[in-house]
Amino acid sequence: MSEAIEIRTIINNRNLNSVTDTPVTDPASGAKGLDGSNAFVCQRSKLDTKTSALKKSSRYRSRSLSASSTDSYSSASCTGSSSDDDDISPREKTQQNSSGFSDFCVRNIAQHAFGRREIEIAEQEMPGIMALRKRAADDRPLKNAKIVGCTHINAQTAVLIETLAALGANLRWAACNIYSTQNEVAAALAEAGFSVFAWRGETEEDFWWCIDKCVNAESWQPNMILDDGGDATHLMLKKYPAMFKLIKGIVEESVTGVHRLYQLSKGGKLSVPAMNVNDSVTKTKYDNLYSCRESIIDSLKRSTDVMFGGKQVVICGYGEVGKGCSQALKGFGCVVYVTEIDPICALQASMDGYRVVKLNEVVRNVDIVITATGNKNVVTREHMDKMKNGCIVCNMGHSNTEIDVNSLRTPDLTWEKVRSQVDHVIWPDGKRIILLAEGRLVNLSCSSLPSFVVSITSATQALALIELFNAPPGRYKSDVYLLPKKMGEYLIILYSK
Amino acid sequence: MSEAIEIRTIINNRNLNSVTDTPVTDPASGAKGLDGSNAFVCQRSKLDTKTSALKKSSRYRSRSLSASSTDSYSSASCTGSSSDDDDISPREKTQQNSSGFSDFCVRNIAQHAFGRREIEIAEQEMPGIMALRKRAADDRPLKNAKIVGCTHINAQTAVLIETLAALGANLRWAACNIYSTQNEVAAALAEAGFSVFAWRGETEEDFWWCIDKCVNAESWQPNMILDDGGDATHLMLKKYPAMFKLIKGIVEESVTGVHRLYQLSKGGKLSVPAMNVNDSVTKTKYDNLYSCRESIIDSLKRSTDVMFGGKQVVICGYGEVGKGCSQALKGFGCVVYVTEIDPICALQASMDGYRVVKLNEVVRNVDIVITATGNKNVVTREHMDKMKNGCIVCNMGHSNTEIDVNSLRTPDLTWEKVRSQVDHVIWPDGKRIILLAEGRLVNLSCSSLPSFVVSITSATQALALIELFNAPPGRYKSDVYLLPKKMGEYLIILYSK
Amino acid sequence: MSEAIEIRTIINNRNLNSVTDTPVTDPASGAKGLDGSNAFVCQRSKLDTKTSALKKSSRYRSRSLSASSTDSYSSASCTGSSSDDDDISPREKTQQNSSGFSDFCVRNIAQHAFGRREIEIAEQEMPGIMALRKRAADDRPLKNAKIVGCTHINAQTAVLIETLAALGANLRWAACNIYSTQNEVAAALAEAGFSVFAWRGETEEDFWWCIDKCVNAESWQPNMILDDGGDATHLMLKKYPAMFKLIKGIVEESVTGVHRLYQLSKGGKLSVPAMNVNDSVTKTKYDNLYSCRESIIDSLKRSTDVMFGGKQVVICGYGEVGKGCSQALKGFGCVVYVTEIDPICALQASMDGYRVVKLNEVVRNVDIVITATGNKNVVTREHMDKMKNGCIVCNMGHSNTEIDVNSLRTPDLTWEKVRSQVDHVIWPDGKRIILLAEGRLVNLSCSSLPSFVVSITSATQALALIELFNAPPGRYKSDVYLLPKKMGEYLIILYSK
Amino acid sequence: MSEAIEIRTIINNRNLNSVTDTPVTDPASGAKGLDGSNAFVCQRSKLDTKTSALKKSSRYRSRSLSASSTDSYSSASCTGSSSDDDDISPREKTQQNSSGFSDFCVRNIAQHAFGRREIEIAEQEMPGIMALRKRAADDRPLKNAKIVGCTHINAQTAVLIETLAALGANLRWAACNIYSTQNEVAAALAEAGFSVFAWRGETEEDFWWCIDKCVNAESWQPNMILDDGGDATHLMLKKYPAMFKLIKGIVEESVTGVHRLYQLSKGGKLSVPAMNVNDSVTKTKYDNLYSCRESIIDSLKRSTDVMFGGKQVVICGYGEVGKGCSQALKGFGCVVYVTEIDPICALQASMDGYRVVKLNEVVRNVDIVITATGNKNVVTREHMDKMKNGCIVCNMGHSNTEIDVNSLRTPDLTWEKVRSQVDHVIWPDGKRIILLAEGRLVNLSCSSLPSFVVSITSATQALALIELFNAPPGRYKSDVYLLPKKMGEYLIILYSK
Repeated sequence: MSEAIEIRTIINNRNLNSVTDTPVTDPASGAKGLDGSNAFVCQRSKLDTKTSALKKSSRYRSRSLSASSTDSYSSASCTGSSSDDDDISPREKTQQNSSGFSDFCVRNIAQHAFGRREIEIAEQEMPGIMALRKRAADDRPLKNAKIVGCTHINAQTAVLIETLAALGANLRWAACNIYSTQNEVAAALAEAGFSVFAWRGETEEDFWWCIDKCVNAESWQPNMILDDGGDATHLMLKKYPAMFKLIKGIVEESVTGVHRLYQLSKGGKLSVPAMNVNDSVTKTKYDNLYSCRESIIDSLKRSTDVMFGGKQVVICGYGEVGKGCSQALKGFGCVVYVTEIDPICALQASMDGYRVVKLNEVVRNVDIVITATGNKNVVTREHMDKMKNGCIVCNMGHSNTEIDVNSLRTPDLTWEKVRSQVDHVIWPDGKRIILLAEGRLVNLSCSSLPSFVVSITSATQALALIELFNAPPGRYKSDVYLLPKKMGEYLIILYSK
Repeated sequence: MSEAIEIRTIINNRNLNSVTDTPVTDPASGAKGLDGSNAFVCQRSKLDTKTSALKKSSRYRSRSLSASSTDSYSSASCTGSSSDDDDISPREKTQQNSSGFSDFCVRNIAQHAFGRREIEIAEQEMPGIMALRKRAADDRPLKNAKIVGCTHINAQTAVLIETLAALGANLRWAACNIYSTQNEVAAALAEAGFSVFAWRGETEEDFWWCIDKCVNAESWQPNMILDDGGDATHLMLKKYPAMFKLIKGIVEESVTGVHRLYQLSKGGKLSVPAMNVNDSVTKTKYDNLYSCRESIIDSLKRSTDVMFGGKQVVICGYGEVGKGCSQALKGFGCVVYVTEIDPICALQASMDGYRVVKLNEVVRNVDIVITATGNKNVVTREHMDKMKNGCIVCNMGHSNTEIDVNSLRTPDLTWEKVRSQVDHVIWPDGKRIILLAEGRLVNLSCSSLPSFVVSITSATQALALIELFNAPPGRYKSDVYLLPKKMGEYLIILYSK
Repeated sequence: MSEAIEIRTIINNRNLNSVTDTPVTDPASGAKGLDGSNAFVCQRSKLDTKTSALKKSSRYRSRSLSASSTDSYSSASCTGSSSDDDDISPREKTQQNSSGFSDFCVRNIAQHAFGRREIEIAEQEMPGIMALRKRAADDRPLKNAKIVGCTHINAQTAVLIETLAALGANLRWAACNIYSTQNEVAAALAEAGFSVFAWRGETEEDFWWCIDKCVNAESWQPNMILDDGGDATHLMLKKYPAMFKLIKGIVEESVTGVHRLYQLSKGGKLSVPAMNVNDSVTKTKYDNLYSCRESIIDSLKRSTDVMFGGKQVVICGYGEVGKGCSQALKGFGCVVYVTEIDPICALQASMDGYRVVKLNEVVRNVDIVITATGNKNVVTREHMDKMKNGCIVCNMGHSNTEIDVNSLRTPDLTWEKVRSQVDHVIWPDGKRIILLAEGRLVNLSCSSLPSFVVSITSATQALALIELFNAPPGRYKSDVYLLPKKMGEYLIILYSK
Repeated sequence: MSEAIEIRTIINNRNLNSVTDTPVTDPASGAKGLDGSNAFVCQRSKLDTKTSALKKSSRYRSRSLSASSTDSYSSASCTGSSSDDDDISPREKTQQNSSGFSDFCVRNIAQHAFGRREIEIAEQEMPGIMALRKRAADDRPLKNAKIVGCTHINAQTAVLIETLAALGANLRWAACNIYSTQNEVAAALAEAGFSVFAWRGETEEDFWWCIDKCVNAESWQPNMILDDGGDATHLMLKKYPAMFKLIKGIVEESVTGVHRLYQLSKGGKLSVPAMNVNDSVTKTKYDNLYSCRESIIDSLKRSTDVMFGGKQVVICGYGEVGKGCSQALKGFGCVVYVTEIDPICALQASMDGYRVVKLNEVVRNVDIVITATGNKNVVTREHMDKMKNGCIVCNMGHSNTEIDVNSLRTPDLTWEKVRSQVDHVIWPDGKRIILLAEGRLVNLSCSSLPSFVVSITSATQALALIELFNAPPGRYKSDVYLLPKKMGEYLIILYSK
């Protein structure tokens, strides 16, 4: 497989991973009972709702959730929700903010101060979106925009939301995931006067109710959609087709959402232009090379406290992700081997100073095995049988198929969870391998995404909204577009101070 | 100041830091009421008992405590002690292990299984001490050694304790710090038949009682002491001088303990040879260059989730610590500046590719400021007044004097603790600087020490015990020695597989 | 300009550079007096024949020539040709090799031993082409191929020629440049029985006579052309159109040659498939990132003996060439600044740890200025006026337009040639800047191209010949093709041992 | 062997190497017939005068000579002396400079312009010595100093000489080596009015005559000696003992000279303080880590044009030299292995990311073998028998004993000199290894020493002269001293701009 193909595959799979797990059902079946036609097929399974939701939320948790290594108290208080989980539903409560505003629904408006602090911290680390807010504040390029938003709700998206408002937009906002909302942040948004409908631990019915509240409100005709997964788009399309006709543009973040848009487009049902920000250059660069370069180290440190100097590591795959991992580990004094089947990537690895090997040549000797190929079963039971005691095995490249984890679920092996995301798999002779995140993406499970990376996505979304909202008639047809390169470049300029 | 001097200073200060904070008082005054002579001066203040104990304990906490970023539950359960804090004192309880053995005193023997797992995990990452255990198991070089131990009690020291036993020694063990004991590990040691007297949250009276139980027991004449801070040594010297005369050797880990030994030696009161493992080559190399290279990254990531790529960083001081920090940050794509007053170190920095500057030249522009000089007030209020919004400030070099933190405690500035170990200091105009660990050593507060590094210290201690116990008469007099170079080299060989 | 575009531009310009300088005139006008139609336009100027020929030849000189990069005189003497320069023309001589074979024309057949040794040395460093020779020797995939070759003639091309023969081909070979032939190598080929017609210092009439001898020989109907600049192709097309019709394929190395092929194709005059090896992935990767990473260091060292550690360097442009230069100089302890107008490349530079600046910000302080943008007048007189005494200025990116060298040819400045390729330009106040290669490509002038890099091009040419010669009918039409990706990958496999 | 010892050994051997080869005989026997007592023992052999002189001179040749490292002939021609070699002796000629001054003896005063240019170029790259010249010009700290100098005479030492004069000194200067003088530079000094007595190709009698002319001149009582090898010191001591008594201090550059001073001191014959600049911190740092980091690359490139990316390299020894080599080669994309017997250095190598191996484990696979141990026969015939075809073997660490070159001089092997400093040694099966500099120090033979490095030595010499000349009575006794650390630091400050 060529490098380009491989990288694309990794990207796709990465995103598919988070998206195919989305835990809610179709509004048609789970919510209000629409016509039930199968034109609007639910692409997500109900089965593994719980685990995948957790996984998804872990990616987007706020900094304060992720960084609690030294302070279990604050991390506990920060999620806050645990003690609320048995409360009555927010839908049953009557709440209003300190100005008397009540067009929102959150877990507990009283938590707003803590959420505001989180938002302020996030602002520090999102220079691009803050620069955009400042530069465009006078122009108000989103004046008269009426946006229905449906995304994760956390400190970083709050910065996006408040930036869109600063650029002139009116907004109503719901969560795209029933588990990922940070209640305190939602409270802070409500306190600031935003119509936000979201809490951690929504039921499926709640989920669709929240979106519906964003779409259908008194004297509210939305003209833009910012979506992450396609749920807001599809609810509006199915339930409020007339309203949907007046939409000027859709910005979609996720692979699944983009996929659904393409299907609509093929089926002739997409009546508005849409922009796919998932595949923008800026995003792929950051989600791969630069972000992984740091998150592989962070993931391994936080989960195992391993010392890197002098360790032998094999990295399977030398696409962008493998390049980032190799560079970081070499920088810390590891001896790094690379496996790679694409000859051009293999030669790059070689010229970059890595011995290109077959996994079997080194698997008995290495201390750490990292997969980043985008392929299946790159690390097999046979390989793991040969690993030495204490070998760490983890996956940076593909949802959960690169390491054949199932092959480890046999009676002769004992699994011992030594801490969250860390399992010892113990062979009959006492040998242990240390499996991280059960073979899922270790950087999503064991580290936190820097606000900086998140903020690039946010800024991209904002620019896409501006572009679609202000495009002269005829520039975009009812199709799915990539962000124009010029906008990507403008984005970078925002980040270059 | 020359490089050599600077490094020594850093080392000394680092260790002094942890030791001068030792939270307990002298047995003469605070505990049992000995003769009260001031020959045995207490070098530690009672005043900051609490915070410093926490700091000290954080350095030696087990991996499971440190790595809980994704799982607040397990970290809570792991310390376990919180729920026990109001329990009756272990001294009041009657406990026995599953073999009926009861010559120990721990918080709760029932917690042993969890502690054993922690010990097994630690064994994976302590290859040197495990290799020593294996290689010397037949020789039993510590046969007939009767060791009184007084150290932190955690998974890594448990590996040391069990190794000493495997080499033939009899042991009795107490904690050197009232807060740092991992109760589960102590329970596991008791379950394994070790006479351990230690729990988290001892009173000062408990502290000396525990040491006394290790020294003074039926049909027990100890002949070796392994000490960390000098408390076991001094209790024995003061309270059981006859017993002390029969000691063959003392191994001391801390700077304070070493300092006390030198004072005894000067005063003509040291009647046995002692070995200072604090200043061994292996330890200084690891505690400085290699360990700091990784811990600076880990500390910054865990506390701030900052993305390193493209950040501008200034590192004050280019001794071993500064070299490690610079290398790591450059490797992650930071632009690194160095300040250095020693011209030879400055030229090294220059030849290594860093711009050598005065702090004032860059302080307005950098994103991160790191101190590693061993000097006082390297970063002043004036500097911090100039820093840009969001600048991160932390200290890798000196207890808590490199950053003039006190200068920030003025009415015009607001402190906001955004999470444990992370404060925002807010200027009247809204500018925030992010201060880590209140200026104390950030790598001790915000990351965890890899077992690998700890294990080098442990193996050094074991080798020092073997050397002193087996030395032919006359090799060592009643003085303080460094570990012979040959032993240091043997140690390295253990680690080189 | 986007990165992709920039890189392409650099590649194109680089090649255009060597090609537009080709020093000979059209056969139509300069040699035998063909029909003179302007359909066959000469794209090369006669004006700067001499200097450009030297420049071109320097790129392709053999290793032994290259070691004396600073002394063109000695390199001439090194080939031994200097003493022959006044000899009678080879065309006047009667020579035969030791087997009595005489179908060749070289300077002096007696020099063959030295040339053979050069070929053997080159073989050591061309693993890919040698592997191809070995692997395909049994298949003889070029059996029945009759190839007219027209390339530089040096040790590396001799290895290519002998490989083609080993694969089954019959060959006749001429030089593509009147100055670049290594006489000893030509003699060695003649001694080995090859019909080679080339010597250093051909006249323009000689040049066309030699090609003619390769095309038009008794009982010789060529079916393949391997060309570098398009001269053999065009001579055959113009003078022997019937013969041209029977050609199965053309492999062309240079940008100019490719350009001419495209023009023929447009004009409907290209009756055979042609393959453009200039733009193959393998070639661009090597001619840019990996090759430049080494050649910038080599060029600066050989010409100036500068010590890199601690120097400040600015690199203009962060395409593949700039990336390679930056990496190498950072690795040697330089402080590297980057200028870049493309925001995506700029952000890459930033994330890779370089300060992105405007040239004006740093030009007063840097020790070395390197251009690699592909643009014109990146370094102006105004910049050079500001540079400090001793600043080194060189160009890695564009023929000779990136540095505005003409602006230095003013009466107030004194030029002093301090050695070959190194000029001091002296300001009235005594300030000197050190200009390398008069602003031409420094790595072509001041270092030598590793055989390894050359050999990748050679192997690509061989594979292209095999592909075209063996392609089933219909796979290729009368058009210009790129080497199929599969062949590129096969090539890499040859190099991956 | 410990690292410290190893490094010292390397340094010593390196210098001994160049010094024990000094080609001239004792003045007692070879020149004027002194008393012939053996108190003044000649420590140098006449036997290998020629080759060693060339080697020595190669280290100190000027930049323009160095650029043609592979061609000793052309370098000779470059100085222009070749045509003079058969001239009548300079001692027979009558020459005067353009001011009518004639108290000098050089090859040809007419060559002064070329020499001046070389000096001016050197000034550009010797910032420290030039800064010293500027800073101290007003103080004139060498006012009234009368210095006899005896060093290599090239552009860099000319900068030193003119600096000393600018600081107030009077000077008379001779060469310390009969082959290393650059005639043009000597002419330029003479033209500038310096009493210089030196030319390339002196006889032994000339050599002592020149020194004598510097010591013994009308109305000239020298009070300082700057020596390189101890010849001026010893001539004065033997022949002009009364004059020697009035000397205030000696500065000695070479190991041999230092050794001779220590012997004098032991024998009670050293009546003046002397300063050993050979072992100053600044010199050892530069001659090892930083200089070797660059010169290994330069040497390999100039001699073999090898491409580094993807090559496998083994470096024997991980002292300062080995560290520098490893870092440079890793930076260029080599896979680097290290052999090391000292466990502490071995662990450093491991923590720095190199696989520590035994040579036998990798010798069959590597492309380049570099020795840097300071030991003998590190690479044996047995190793070389196993190397693969094309393997490059060279020595960075010890005069010529690290590679057992003699073991290659057996009838079954063929040596083929492929260019200067490069031999192919050919096994019966056709395998070739590429041996550089016949196993002598490759960086002295195949690259040139940057002026920057040379200039640090020069500045150290100047500071040592200033210190000795101005020291208050009693600070220095009649012994051999190291440069005070403060002076070393001052030196660094000069270089830090």
